[in-house]
Amino acid sequence: MARDTRERLLTTARDLVHASTYADVGVDDVCRAARVNKGSLYHFFPSKQALGLAVLDRNWELMRALLDQTLGAQGPPLDRLDAFLAGYASMMRTMREHLGGVPGCPLGNLAAELSAHEPVMRARITEVLAAWTDRIADVVREAQVRGDVEPTLDATSAARAVVACIQGYSVLAKAEDDPGALDPLRPLVRTLLLLPR
Amino acid sequence: MARDTRERLLTTARDLVHASTYADVGVDDVCRAARVNKGSLYHFFPSKQALGLAVLDRNWELMRALLDQTLGAQGPPLDRLDAFLAGYASMMRTMREHLGGVPGCPLGNLAAELSAHEPVMRARITEVLAAWTDRIADVVREAQVRGDVEPTLDATSAARAVVACIQGYSVLAKAEDDPGALDPLRPLVRTLLLLPR
Repeated sequence: MARDTRERLLTTARDLVHASTYADVGVDDVCRAARVNKGSLYHFFPSKQALGLAVLDRNWELMRALLDQTLGAQGPPLDRLDAFLAGYASMMRTMREHLGGVPGCPLGNLAAELSAHEPVMRARITEVLAAWTDRIADVVREAQVRGDVEPTLDATSAARAVVACIQGYSVLAKAEDDPGALDPLRPLVRTLLLLPR
Repeated sequence: MARDTRERLLTTARDLVHASTYADVGVDDVCRAARVNKGSLYHFFPSKQALGLAVLDRNWELMRALLDQTLGAQGPPLDRLDAFLAGYASMMRTMREHLGGVPGCPLGNLAAELSAHEPVMRARITEVLAAWTDRIADVVREAQVRGDVEPTLDATSAARAVVACIQGYSVLAKAEDDPGALDPLRPLVRTLLLLPR
């Protein structure tokens, strides 16, 4: 029961943040939309920041699930990376249907919204982006072992370029409210990893 | 005098939005920081949206000035594009000193913050991103005429990739509060434009 309430608050907060911004969503909005009183919210999340961090962690859980599902599958490493990018684009389409507009990257949005006054949130976002980059760097290294990617390429830098491209095209997709803006991402990433430096 | 007040309100609003987010900055905050009363603010900017659009336009003016200065200079097109990227990174360093943290791309931040409920702001951001892309596409075309870039490359798609990379690395720089995160941008863009497809 308590678990259900916590989950409802978290899911509601996540949807509200996606549909607008973290700054725009107040604790009152979450209570109203989740039909939970404020005391109960503060029982589970002692501050807006605690709720924000929980939303960030949930977003990362969902991204990690997609990473596990695609990068952890069978097949050549670059094909698995491609499957991840396809899954990401497909997630963006689903979220658009659910929320009425392309929400952009749930993790990147929180990063772009960061202010200098939120060191805790910033630290957690940096960790999450690093963990995401590590997952992609592992695939790049696997591809290097197979000879699919130039062995002299620094895997972490290459993975950061991939994450940066995902973030950048997500900003365009959000601005234009068009998930199709993500279409160039898959060929671009493949070219990036295959090109001679 | 009226012009001064309008300018002070706009500059103050811009600084506040950069240091936090558009959503976080209220009309009251702007009035307080600019030492202008609310009636006066509403005289120049009838709504928060009007003020937000003016901030966006000012951000675009400043970006356009950097584009004019770098892309409009003498020299080979790809060197001018490189000078623009160097200028962008340097602007990020200056803004960090001024604001106490890497603010990210002033245009991309507003795009990332967009909600489905702000069609007017969205439309203007889309226009601005398209104008930015056009400026870069022109340089790519110039480089193609000189034989510096593969003639079969679609200049607009290539320019969108450049803008996406700028946005993506800016998100990383903001998350990590490190303008050095932008360092890979210049070599990446050059490689992107020079690589065979």
